Amino acid sequence: MEKIAVLGGGSWATALVKILSENKSRVHWWMRSHSDVQHLINYRHNPRYLSGVSFDLNYVKPSSDIQAVVAAADWVILAVPAAFVQLALADLQEDALKGKVVVSAVKGMIPGENLLITDYMEKKYHVPNTHQLIIAGPCHAEEVALEKQSYLSIGSHSLDTAERFCELLRNRYVKANPLDDLDGIEYCAVMKNIIALACGIARGLNFGDNFQAVLVSNAMPEIERFLDAIMPLHRNLSGSAYLGDLLVTAYSQFSRNRTFGNMIGRGYTVKSAQIEMDMVAEGYYAVQSIYDLNKKLKVDMPITNAVYLILYERISPPVEFDILKDKLK
Amino acid sequence: MEKIAVLGGGSWATALVKILSENKSRVHWWMRSHSDVQHLINYRHNPRYLSGVSFDLNYVKPSSDIQAVVAAADWVILAVPAAFVQLALADLQEDALKGKVVVSAVKGMIPGENLLITDYMEKKYHVPNTHQLIIAGPCHAEEVALEKQSYLSIGSHSLDTAERFCELLRNRYVKANPLDDLDGIEYCAVMKNIIALACGIARGLNFGDNFQAVLVSNAMPEIERFLDAIMPLHRNLSGSAYLGDLLVTAYSQFSRNRTFGNMIGRGYTVKSAQIEMDMVAEGYYAVQSIYDLNKKLKVDMPITNAVYLILYERISPPVEFDILKDKLK
Repeated sequence: MEKIAVLGGGSWATALVKILSENKSRVHWWMRSHSDVQHLINYRHNPRYLSGVSFDLNYVKPSSDIQAVVAAADWVILAVPAAFVQLALADLQEDALKGKVVVSAVKGMIPGENLLITDYMEKKYHVPNTHQLIIAGPCHAEEVALEKQSYLSIGSHSLDTAERFCELLRNRYVKANPLDDLDGIEYCAVMKNIIALACGIARGLNFGDNFQAVLVSNAMPEIERFLDAIMPLHRNLSGSAYLGDLLVTAYSQFSRNRTFGNMIGRGYTVKSAQIEMDMVAEGYYAVQSIYDLNKKLKVDMPITNAVYLILYERISPPVEFDILKDKLK
Repeated sequence: MEKIAVLGGGSWATALVKILSENKSRVHWWMRSHSDVQHLINYRHNPRYLSGVSFDLNYVKPSSDIQAVVAAADWVILAVPAAFVQLALADLQEDALKGKVVVSAVKGMIPGENLLITDYMEKKYHVPNTHQLIIAGPCHAEEVALEKQSYLSIGSHSLDTAERFCELLRNRYVKANPLDDLDGIEYCAVMKNIIALACGIARGLNFGDNFQAVLVSNAMPEIERFLDAIMPLHRNLSGSAYLGDLLVTAYSQFSRNRTFGNMIGRGYTVKSAQIEMDMVAEGYYAVQSIYDLNKKLKVDMPITNAVYLILYERISPPVEFDILKDKLK
């Protein structure tokens, strides 16, 4: 029986615990809140997310002791918002992850440090590249809960390890596919949230479907230019892990990034949109990291720049999108 | 003043007449129905499509005399469903288009002959390649009526002619861009309707957004493989004219192809879906043409094949999509 730690109590963590435990892996599930852990043990449901899913406690071991959860596992899945990764792992010793495979299901970068999660895990916890994986969609957690057909891509520097992890995921409604591109998939997962945010701003400004299709089809070459500059590799970005992941986010009515962007487009300030939503839109942090990284790379990134200027330089959304629309084609 | 003939009375024809006439070209507008022409002359609205748009009769000359309309123009825009092109042009002499630029706004092929519209115009009316253009989106006619920001791509073998036509289209809310790929854009416009139909079938079968994102991101390489086989050229299919055009159709709630597919997925027969909808879904004809063409090319086209087998070989949609989902990744 494979021993897996899942760190995080959100919807994506919950979906992954469902998939893995139904395949009869033993899942040590860490969430910060002690009362949520108790709820899970008492009622076999996560009280906050995908509450319709019930768990078999023969396979799922909820706990709020992160050290014990990590120590018990060979695979450690990170599934917390990027902005909370450092805080969530604060109690772990530097060598706590030694010999384990770390799987990032995070879609963002460490704020302020402009580091990918995989780079942070290498720097801080000395997890080598070969022991790291990335889970990419396209995959709404909500549809996993409903057991709708979904596809996951597992990015890696070691296709062997990726394939072993894929085997833990595959079931009647999940297909999993190993891919030899750890960093490209991770950057793409970060950048898709910026594009979803841009789609939201466009909607808030009353642009329509024609413009959104142009935004997304200009986003793909923008992402490609950035990836070619920061991590050259021959990629076909039309694949599920890249374009597919972008589409499921950019066209989702439920995406937090899109909702946040929509409020910005309608004239909310960043602060009031954040208070109103009471949650984190990953794209808000992502755009600062990518913008910073691009100061050196100087890649042509009109969409990313527009989102950055609106969120961080207080440029008016209608003014900035009026400029942006002339740069798209 | 440029003299333009627009042939067709549907929503896309109506949107093009609005754009061109507001730019002060003289538009000779042919529609088959004499009573619709009279309505236009009396009330300055198309009674059937985009009825909110009113036309300036100083620039728009409605008529049901196709010979007079074509004779009066230097540019002739075809904007009828592919299945009706032959019928619509039946009264034209073979040399009626001599010296004129023919612009296809049709998204389909001549049924039974497996010919692109541009190829048909060359074969039947001797219009040379250099005198032909293709209009591609992404563009819902309904959003043009609302003057929402839209982008058009004009495909051509002569960038000069394409640029001249772009100048007739550009305005406050329309950007137009010449592209050196007449056939690729035309095939892509045909194939996107097959993909939209597949998205509709998936929805009818109760697949979700995760699966749709995978369908669309597998469709792009499928289209690319076909284009590379039938008309090799270095293309970036992430552009608006290709991916953008596919997105606006595949994600539209109003697409006839998607609606038709949805009914097929829910168990309607082809005939009952057609009777129920009372209109033509271009993808229904397109898939037969592309499937036939591919008999020689033998390109790997799992989505196109699945749609063909369902529509023409009476294979059950759940059975066929169960096979298809294993071929996607």
